[in-house]
Amino acid sequence: MRTHHCNQLRSSDIGSTATLIGWVNSARDHGGVIFIDLRDREGLTQCVFRPEENAEAAKLSHQLREEDVVLVTGHVEKRLDGTLNDKIDTGEIEIIATNLTIVNKAEVLPFQLDKELSNEDLRMKYRYLDLRRPRMTNNLRTRHRVTKSSRDFLDEQGFCEIETPILSKSTPEGARDFLVPSRMHGGHFYALPQAPQQYKQLLMVGGIERYFQIAKCFRDEDLRADRQPEFTQIDIEASFVDQDEVIGMVEGLLGRVFKESINAEIPTSFDRMTWKEAMNRYGSDKPDRRFGLEFVDLTEELKDCEFRVFSGTVANGGIIKAINAKGFADISTGQIDKLTKLAQDAGAKGLAYIQARGEERSTWRSPFVKRMTDDEVEALRTKLNIEPGDLILFAADQWESACDVLGRVRLACADMQKLTEGSKELNFLWVTEFPLLAFDDEEGRYVAVHHPFTRPHPEDEAKLLAGDLSTDIRALAYDVVLNGHELGGGSIRIHEAPLQSAMFKALGITEEHAAAEFGHILDAFKFGAPPHGGVALGLDRLVMLICGEDSIREVIAFPKNNKGNDLMSQSPAEVDPKQLRDLRIQSTAKKKQDGPQ
Amino acid sequence: MRTHHCNQLRSSDIGSTATLIGWVNSARDHGGVIFIDLRDREGLTQCVFRPEENAEAAKLSHQLREEDVVLVTGHVEKRLDGTLNDKIDTGEIEIIATNLTIVNKAEVLPFQLDKELSNEDLRMKYRYLDLRRPRMTNNLRTRHRVTKSSRDFLDEQGFCEIETPILSKSTPEGARDFLVPSRMHGGHFYALPQAPQQYKQLLMVGGIERYFQIAKCFRDEDLRADRQPEFTQIDIEASFVDQDEVIGMVEGLLGRVFKESINAEIPTSFDRMTWKEAMNRYGSDKPDRRFGLEFVDLTEELKDCEFRVFSGTVANGGIIKAINAKGFADISTGQIDKLTKLAQDAGAKGLAYIQARGEERSTWRSPFVKRMTDDEVEALRTKLNIEPGDLILFAADQWESACDVLGRVRLACADMQKLTEGSKELNFLWVTEFPLLAFDDEEGRYVAVHHPFTRPHPEDEAKLLAGDLSTDIRALAYDVVLNGHELGGGSIRIHEAPLQSAMFKALGITEEHAAAEFGHILDAFKFGAPPHGGVALGLDRLVMLICGEDSIREVIAFPKNNKGNDLMSQSPAEVDPKQLRDLRIQSTAKKKQDGPQ
Repeated sequence: MRTHHCNQLRSSDIGSTATLIGWVNSARDHGGVIFIDLRDREGLTQCVFRPEENAEAAKLSHQLREEDVVLVTGHVEKRLDGTLNDKIDTGEIEIIATNLTIVNKAEVLPFQLDKELSNEDLRMKYRYLDLRRPRMTNNLRTRHRVTKSSRDFLDEQGFCEIETPILSKSTPEGARDFLVPSRMHGGHFYALPQAPQQYKQLLMVGGIERYFQIAKCFRDEDLRADRQPEFTQIDIEASFVDQDEVIGMVEGLLGRVFKESINAEIPTSFDRMTWKEAMNRYGSDKPDRRFGLEFVDLTEELKDCEFRVFSGTVANGGIIKAINAKGFADISTGQIDKLTKLAQDAGAKGLAYIQARGEERSTWRSPFVKRMTDDEVEALRTKLNIEPGDLILFAADQWESACDVLGRVRLACADMQKLTEGSKELNFLWVTEFPLLAFDDEEGRYVAVHHPFTRPHPEDEAKLLAGDLSTDIRALAYDVVLNGHELGGGSIRIHEAPLQSAMFKALGITEEHAAAEFGHILDAFKFGAPPHGGVALGLDRLVMLICGEDSIREVIAFPKNNKGNDLMSQSPAEVDPKQLRDLRIQSTAKKKQDGPQ
Repeated sequence: MRTHHCNQLRSSDIGSTATLIGWVNSARDHGGVIFIDLRDREGLTQCVFRPEENAEAAKLSHQLREEDVVLVTGHVEKRLDGTLNDKIDTGEIEIIATNLTIVNKAEVLPFQLDKELSNEDLRMKYRYLDLRRPRMTNNLRTRHRVTKSSRDFLDEQGFCEIETPILSKSTPEGARDFLVPSRMHGGHFYALPQAPQQYKQLLMVGGIERYFQIAKCFRDEDLRADRQPEFTQIDIEASFVDQDEVIGMVEGLLGRVFKESINAEIPTSFDRMTWKEAMNRYGSDKPDRRFGLEFVDLTEELKDCEFRVFSGTVANGGIIKAINAKGFADISTGQIDKLTKLAQDAGAKGLAYIQARGEERSTWRSPFVKRMTDDEVEALRTKLNIEPGDLILFAADQWESACDVLGRVRLACADMQKLTEGSKELNFLWVTEFPLLAFDDEEGRYVAVHHPFTRPHPEDEAKLLAGDLSTDIRALAYDVVLNGHELGGGSIRIHEAPLQSAMFKALGITEEHAAAEFGHILDAFKFGAPPHGGVALGLDRLVMLICGEDSIREVIAFPKNNKGNDLMSQSPAEVDPKQLRDLRIQSTAKKKQDGPQ
């Protein structure tokens, strides 16, 4: 229908004829002559409707309103001096229209496209209009570039994209499943997959060697701030690889993705840190290293401190850690309260701090510093490099709790200090040697930190086989982190039936239960399963970070809100009772309104 | 772990050292020396374990059994004269092993991989072993090439791949939906999409202009021979395009796909035929034109025939058509019975035929030819070009039934004559101008042939707007056909609210109902919807035809059987009653066994 898109005509086209189609981005009347900015997904072009060119078109142009779809033909001319627009790429030219067709009139929109809209419900209800904003269109196009470059890279590396089933089987381990009632088998249900984990391992048993899939996954969890019930991951598995090979492959993949989506150069290999070190230094398994605020251990220095919170904790087998927020001694009381509340919500009793206003300890504002000896104060000063103006924040508890609490305080403190504001840094990190097992107090048993197919570290394999269980058993599991966000993670897997059985046993899964739920996996491992491992990257979060957005909803075409609703199509919805009868299910939910089910 | 894959070493590598890993495809003992063919996904390499190289490895090699996973290091040597194997690419060399590691022992497999297995249930239960057959691995790799080349082509054409929701809304039109109970909204359900039809149109309203998605779709239908409850389509939509542009784009896409998947050159543009012509000439909306057997109309010639089946049908407004199966006069009685049964199953009373054994009508075997005049016989002879040895098959009924019946007979007859056996021909065809509406006798109303968003042909638009309904109203809908299989289809869509309302009205959908079910689409069309259209290609069938397979199950990694079961993971399955309580649903299916729900 058109000869050019709206971001194509340049000075060199002056004198030619062009036909454009698109939306009226804006219409202005200058002394009886209508000027419009015509918009398509590529950009804007100014069109002018002069009566001397075509009186009928000029007359019609007075009817044009924002978001009308119009077809315009005309001469490409140089704009008059003083009317050039260097904000748009077509700013040197304009179309002097010889023809105008109004293809589809638009009613007045429920909101303006050129203003940011804080009412997200309204945006979601009219998502098809919201997507017309260049920011949203560009986000979706960037997402396409990310998936395209991922596929190009993986294809070149010999990976084969294979679709695994969406109508899948419910697994007892992991998050809550979405279920799909089977009509042909009453009382039986499919489940939507939380990940293609078992299928990708079975593809390795099937000799595919290098698999990937940009896969839809589903979790029926209560939606926290930025989760979606369905999400997408770049899912990868390979045979005959070790951890270093998987890591190198992901580094290559991300390098290609950042280059081709936003032309960013990232390191060809990322720093690595064990989980233990990440917890010890940053109190997080996904440390944001764009700023310091590193933990300093003070257990030894403060073990005899008169302040019982410290010495009592150490006597109990706990530890003491602190961070130095340089130059933040003038933190407000409100901010201190906020950090304290955060620490308490994370399980701490309170938050010990020192506002080091001056050089002398007498100038230090702190609830407990007066109970410290001079030696203790000097030890703090040295190890934490305390200078006038610094704020010191402490955590004292059992190792993991102390690290976790101080890790959260560290992030909130960096946020208050705006340490990353405006930063363009892309700080990548591998966290390795995650624990294999965690102890679930509620269930009174060990659970898998990653999933039940994760391989133990070779040095700890004997312990697992012997049933000598603890959270010290390390896994061959790794996460890739960007600016404090987990981009993804993976592991080398178990490929032998006896080791897999030992793992199920460690998780308290009986042989009968394992056979019923995972029989096909255990069987598969008996018939020549190759060593294999893999990784999965969260696509939504990756694209969010690449687009510089704060929410994954900004990079998903039709997201759901945090109640799981699509406000545009109004799903989920009630259905025809006949559909439920066909499925042989009944709803037991109480209806809000009276009336027949 | 390896230096080479198993289809890599050549004569030029002789003298070097290599490490391979893979599966023992076969093991043979030649005078105490073990020879194995080592297999990975790329091919085979022969490895020899001579005691003089490494006595320990040679001893270990006697334990090797089929499908063990092994790691072999050794020298690449030329095979002895007379032992070269020109059936495999590595047939000139062998590895003289210096090291052997048995990575994972395999138990005896439930079936042999080098034999075709007719027990499909067994193949499906052990799909992870079935996939190790080179045929299956190659099918999956070809599928990958098809999707990769589709994406490359569409990307180059400016199409943007966008994911639309899987947790979607149930629509009253169309096939039966799979439902997903919402836990957060008791009594409410998501539906799995039958196609992303509404979303892709809304993306056009959203200004995306060129969208595609390789999309999972779902239909809860009773599974006929070769259907799957979940299937995949290459889903495409574009704004500002007409039918010719969509058609040209699909031709370019398929050209690229056939070239890059199986190195086949196909025509750059395909023949086109209206639906009416396809029915008139072949009795099918997806005619297989690799053979003739074209319909000849005999309504005029036989309208006064003494044989009442013919003349009575014409008197009733019906028609008479026939095909000439050249040289098939010696069809067996059993085959005639089979064709007759087929015609009857399709709604005919019987099947009229002539076996023209010789030149003279007296030699023609037929239940009715004796009741024909000489003029009638000569008219038949001329129009059908009857020669000795020909078989003529007739249909007489109302136009659509007669075409349909004779179309089925035509296909079965071609099958009996083996007209396409061994053919490598790729015969593409566009069928255009499908009817917009069909009359559903059961529901007593018109239904959409394609879907309710399909645009009427411009020449018939006024009729739809005026409510002057008939099955003669043509749609701007088109299907692409390959060798008698529908590869896909699409249409130009309605983009104006008034025309869409007229369409809903034609389908007997009330304004209230339309507002409730399709309100967001009708709304969207009010805010400047661009003209748009698109197409969807069935990926599973396309790959099946490319791979030369007879069933889509051969090109799906983990298909379900025709009862919707995955025999490997045993889904669908019963679930923990707590899961149903969480979802506030109950099963009303009777349990086969006693016991608590």
